[in-house]
Amino acid sequence: MVVKSQLKFIKSLYQKKYRIQNGLFVVEGKKAVSELLNSKFKTHSIYTVEKEFKTARKTEVYYISDQDLSRISSHKNPNKILGIFEIPAPAAIDYSDWVVVLDGIQDPGNLGTIIRLCDWFGIRHLICSPDTVDCYNPKVLHATMGSIARVNILYADIAELIDKNKNMAMGTYMNGKSVYSVNLPEKGLLVLGNEGSGISEKIGFLIDDKNRIAIPQYGKKTTESLNVATAAAIFLSEIRRSGG
Amino acid sequence: MVVKSQLKFIKSLYQKKYRIQNGLFVVEGKKAVSELLNSKFKTHSIYTVEKEFKTARKTEVYYISDQDLSRISSHKNPNKILGIFEIPAPAAIDYSDWVVVLDGIQDPGNLGTIIRLCDWFGIRHLICSPDTVDCYNPKVLHATMGSIARVNILYADIAELIDKNKNMAMGTYMNGKSVYSVNLPEKGLLVLGNEGSGISEKIGFLIDDKNRIAIPQYGKKTTESLNVATAAAIFLSEIRRSGG
Repeated sequence: MVVKSQLKFIKSLYQKKYRIQNGLFVVEGKKAVSELLNSKFKTHSIYTVEKEFKTARKTEVYYISDQDLSRISSHKNPNKILGIFEIPAPAAIDYSDWVVVLDGIQDPGNLGTIIRLCDWFGIRHLICSPDTVDCYNPKVLHATMGSIARVNILYADIAELIDKNKNMAMGTYMNGKSVYSVNLPEKGLLVLGNEGSGISEKIGFLIDDKNRIAIPQYGKKTTESLNVATAAAIFLSEIRRSGG
Repeated sequence: MVVKSQLKFIKSLYQKKYRIQNGLFVVEGKKAVSELLNSKFKTHSIYTVEKEFKTARKTEVYYISDQDLSRISSHKNPNKILGIFEIPAPAAIDYSDWVVVLDGIQDPGNLGTIIRLCDWFGIRHLICSPDTVDCYNPKVLHATMGSIARVNILYADIAELIDKNKNMAMGTYMNGKSVYSVNLPEKGLLVLGNEGSGISEKIGFLIDDKNRIAIPQYGKKTTESLNVATAAAIFLSEIRRSGG
C-alpha cells in the first residue's frame, strides 16, 4: 500500500523544484525502468504491480495495486512499474566526438526525441542551456524511451562553452549553407535553437558565418521551418553518414 | 454569434464519420487557414474573432467572440480563426518522382509530421493504407502546420498499388541495408510501417529483399527503433541528397 506521505513525495517529484531539492526523479514503464536498472543510475525505490518482479539491486521494492499505481503515476495508463532514481552528477564532456548543444528547447517531446536520437547515433554528450526544459520532466522521459540511461546531459552556460571551443561550433539556421555540401569535420558542436526563434542572438554571435548550416528545402518555399527534433535527426544522420 | 445548430455541426466534423458524410473538414489557426485560403481547397465557411479579417473568396464569414471561438474549437487555446473546407478529391498519383506510402500509421502527430516533411522535400504524393489515421483529423492538421494544402493524399489499397509498381517499392526495416550505401533511384515508393509493428506481412511480401533499407544504428544496440516520423525525415533527406 502507498501511504499518504509516499504519495505526496512521489507527486512532488513531478515538479522540477522538488526534483532538484531531493536529487531524485521518477521513471515509468517496464522498458524505461529496466534500462535504468541496467545502467549506472542509482536506485532510490521501486513501485510495481508485478508480484514476480525482482532486482539484484539493493533497493526498496513496494508491491502495490493497480489502483495505487494510478494514484502515483503521471500517466493516464501507467505501465506496471515506477522507479525513483538519483539524478546523476554529469560527467565531464568529451570533445573528441560530436556533442549536441541545445539553446532554449521548450517542448518536452522535442527534447526527449533529441535524447533518443543522440543514443541512436552514438552521441554521448548533450549540453543544454539553463532555459531548456528539464530532462527529468516526466514528458521528456516518456519520449526518450529509456535512452536517458545512455546519454550524459549537462545543463550549463552554453555561451561560455561555445566560446571556449569556438571553431568547433556548427549552428543550424534556415539560411545556412546546405548540410549536403559542407565538409563536416570529425568532431564538433552541433547547436540547435529554440522552436520558435531558433538560435539566440547571444549564441549566434559566437558562431562563425562559415559554420552556419541548413537543410535544403525542395518544396514550394514557405516560411515554416522543420520541427527542431526532425531537423536534429537529419543533421545527426549527415554527421554519421559523412564519417563524423 | 454561433447558434446551437452551427456548434453541433462544427463539433460533428471532429469525427471522421461526419467529415466523410459532409465532405468537409475543420482547420484552425491563422497560418493554416491562410495557407488553405491560398490553395485550391474550396471554402465552406470561416469563423473569426478578427473584425478586420477579409478574404477575396466568396464564402460565408462569421465574426464571432473569443468565447464562441473557444466553444467551436478543438484546441485549448484557439488561434483567432477557424475555417471549414471541402475535402478535395485526390488527384491521380504521379510516379515520375518519389511517392511516400504509409502502412498503418496510427499516431496523428506522426502523420502530420510526415505530411510536413513531404512538403519540405517536395514530395507531392502521399498514399495511405485505409487503416492509417485520417489526415483530416484535427490533431493531424495541427501537426502539418498548413502543409496539407500542398501534398496530394490518397487513401487506397496499398498492396494493389505496390504490386503494380513492384520494382519501385523500397521498404524501411530495422534490419535492411544501410540507406547510406544503397544507390537510391530517381523515383520510387518509400514505404513506412506502423509505429509498433512496422510494415505488415502482407505488404512486406511484395517488397524485394534488395529493396529493404534501414538507418544504421551507431550507439549501443538497443531494441527500440527510431520513431517513424524521425526515420521518414532521414530517408527523405537521403533521397533528395543523393539526387532522387
